[in-house]
Amino acid sequence: MSETRTLIEPRILSGFRDFLPREMLQRQKLMEIARRVYQSFGFAPIDTPTLEYLEILSGKGSEETDRQMYHFVDNGGRHVGMRFDLTVPLARFAAQHMHQLGTPFKRYHIAPVWRGEKPQDGRYREFVQCDFDTIGTRSLMADLEMILVIDQLLQAIGFQRFQLRINHRLLLNGLLAAKGLEAHSVGVLRGLDKLSKLGATVVRAELIDKVGLPVAVTDEILALAQASQTGLTSGDSAPLLELAQQAVGDHPLGCQGVAELRELLQSAYAAGVPRDRLVVDISIARGLDYYTGTIVETSLLDLPEIGSVCSGGRYDNLAGLYTKQDLPGVGASLGLDRLLAAMDKLGMIPDVSSPSQVLLAFFEPELQLNYLRLASQLRAAGINVEFYPEPAKLKKQLKYADLRHIPAVILIGSQEWEQQQATIKWLYRDQQVNVPLSETGSEICEYFVQELR
Amino acid sequence: MSETRTLIEPRILSGFRDFLPREMLQRQKLMEIARRVYQSFGFAPIDTPTLEYLEILSGKGSEETDRQMYHFVDNGGRHVGMRFDLTVPLARFAAQHMHQLGTPFKRYHIAPVWRGEKPQDGRYREFVQCDFDTIGTRSLMADLEMILVIDQLLQAIGFQRFQLRINHRLLLNGLLAAKGLEAHSVGVLRGLDKLSKLGATVVRAELIDKVGLPVAVTDEILALAQASQTGLTSGDSAPLLELAQQAVGDHPLGCQGVAELRELLQSAYAAGVPRDRLVVDISIARGLDYYTGTIVETSLLDLPEIGSVCSGGRYDNLAGLYTKQDLPGVGASLGLDRLLAAMDKLGMIPDVSSPSQVLLAFFEPELQLNYLRLASQLRAAGINVEFYPEPAKLKKQLKYADLRHIPAVILIGSQEWEQQQATIKWLYRDQQVNVPLSETGSEICEYFVQELR
Repeated sequence: MSETRTLIEPRILSGFRDFLPREMLQRQKLMEIARRVYQSFGFAPIDTPTLEYLEILSGKGSEETDRQMYHFVDNGGRHVGMRFDLTVPLARFAAQHMHQLGTPFKRYHIAPVWRGEKPQDGRYREFVQCDFDTIGTRSLMADLEMILVIDQLLQAIGFQRFQLRINHRLLLNGLLAAKGLEAHSVGVLRGLDKLSKLGATVVRAELIDKVGLPVAVTDEILALAQASQTGLTSGDSAPLLELAQQAVGDHPLGCQGVAELRELLQSAYAAGVPRDRLVVDISIARGLDYYTGTIVETSLLDLPEIGSVCSGGRYDNLAGLYTKQDLPGVGASLGLDRLLAAMDKLGMIPDVSSPSQVLLAFFEPELQLNYLRLASQLRAAGINVEFYPEPAKLKKQLKYADLRHIPAVILIGSQEWEQQQATIKWLYRDQQVNVPLSETGSEICEYFVQELR
Repeated sequence: MSETRTLIEPRILSGFRDFLPREMLQRQKLMEIARRVYQSFGFAPIDTPTLEYLEILSGKGSEETDRQMYHFVDNGGRHVGMRFDLTVPLARFAAQHMHQLGTPFKRYHIAPVWRGEKPQDGRYREFVQCDFDTIGTRSLMADLEMILVIDQLLQAIGFQRFQLRINHRLLLNGLLAAKGLEAHSVGVLRGLDKLSKLGATVVRAELIDKVGLPVAVTDEILALAQASQTGLTSGDSAPLLELAQQAVGDHPLGCQGVAELRELLQSAYAAGVPRDRLVVDISIARGLDYYTGTIVETSLLDLPEIGSVCSGGRYDNLAGLYTKQDLPGVGASLGLDRLLAAMDKLGMIPDVSSPSQVLLAFFEPELQLNYLRLASQLRAAGINVEFYPEPAKLKKQLKYADLRHIPAVILIGSQEWEQQQATIKWLYRDQQVNVPLSETGSEICEYFVQELR
């Protein structure tokens, strides 16, 4: 091998990311919380292959996902693709295994997906999705549970100020159907979606001129949108639902939409969701081709501009392309990257890049076995302790701890050893204390168990 | 859409796997334990992209890994590959970020890798690696820590009967160098590797006839191998190390090898590793081109035939292809799939396919809000509770719990509600008890906190 060998430039692909310890500790913490909350409701984890037969994936999302999909021919001549979401794999998985799993089937899936999007602010080509779904039941209790999971999840992460906005596909569809205008529903939803950006006057003109909605119906819908907006602010959706009930009259679909929204609110309150945290927002229109009932979005009140951090809804038939078994479902997805970006902006991410709670400094080679014993004792007491791997100057070891934000350093030199006293230096407390050293290490273990509790 | 549309067959690629809840719960548990143990020693998590520039990956493993790599040209015309291990990405990562991270750098990385191997028993094309490494120090304390981590990890997983076998590349190399035979070291190691399969007579002939080793040296090495074998059984490596010291004479490399093995044993004992759990095995020869010092393998004494479940060693220069910075390191990798297969064989995996600890049965629609409140109360007490999503017959709900191995079912019908007594049915205890129901749910929460502790 030549000494003058050219080095390969260490670089990563555009749209992909290295996660350094500080970011990764946060990502892991978030995924752990998601797992814990999902599991507390009985959702079970699954995983599926990164690569699927191309015929499983292609044509299953939108034209856009088809275009963005990473796909290739493998060494065995098979056309394969990297999954672009967790929903299509779930459909394939459900069709294949449902006979064994039984219904209702509650699963969660936390895994990366790949889309060759144009990289831009907050958009990556590899990102983690955290989905949970209940398959095989039409019961509204599964819709409710989706709401409860989101509520618990955001609280567990540390958010207090957030709002779940729910809608029901049948509400507007029912209203339009009652007037023989069901063909216009997509246009109406698209218009309502622009309301907050463009204002009522522009949207009114669009609904009347472009969508071709009668003026009276347009105004009725805009009044509902207005009431919806008022409800978001007041945290009370009752007036909107009364108005909606009048608007849908006795049309069965519309009535079902209103009734289910009512029941969701009432049940969620009973299960402990604060009233102003769950509101009806008739402008939510995500996944037009996919969702058929309840729809939910979640906004952070301190950072509404980042959009929904957890979204989902009810769909009629998960796996119709792969099986004749009818599999209705309901579920949502936590936007991990968006949430982490929000937490960063809100100062919720500590500047810690090590899991170590304590650094045990290494000064005297002849004390090496004693250091090792103490480190083992501390670990047995449940404390994350790092032993500096070689004898080095105090300054260097303190710098090591500070760079990683390790809060405490144990200092035992020959003098401390003779006096059987360890010195504990707290880096961010400007505090230094002495703790007795003993054969069992019990005093120092107890000290840290107390201090780090 | 036509009603007679052909269904797409739901299937997965050969060598890839779906993980159903039972398997996934176990995998997650194992990964959680690995994270916890790695972190208790101060190893910090990182992650790297699934896809890398092909030039980063190709030619970095063996010819085999090159051949097995999944690679393609992406939509932007870039040649990209899917990582086939976590070591090459670590090297690239270290070269790119080490100035920011500082040394020593202790990282762990738990992530899938892909190799287009011929699928066979226990070999998959997508599998998870769990690596941990300390970069940037030559201190033997980092080698020792690798041993301590493996020891703690296997204990935490639930193994008692396992053995860590260590070797040192300089031991045999030093012995051969002392006799001017260093050129034969690869042949000697390959021969020793076959000892347990082929026996001493065959290997002796190979070393003499094929490798071209003098008879006297061959017999000296076979005597060491014999002592090594005896040490594995007795759990005492002292006799082997004495013999090895005589064999290497005063050759500095050989002496260093013996001295470091001695120090590793002594330090590990001081840190609490039982003597017979850590032994020297001079036949271990993994990663001939890569490892330069300590080498470790781990065998399960109840299932030795599955091979090493956690292996690693010390290497000289991690990232020489990407940076001029000298980055020695030491680390190991937990064989997650192999370990899970072993646990399955040893009956260590419970037949549970749900995280739920309790199923709350649904009988009376009019009690729905009360069920919801109770479920929330139980979750707030830290209990994983699943609420059956719709009213159904007792038999059906019990079958649901049994299929998933949920241990307890709470039964509250109208009669129980009137008497304010819940019936708890324990599926695998043949036991049924009554617990008072109250507004706060405190009695039933306390009951389960006690029972499930």
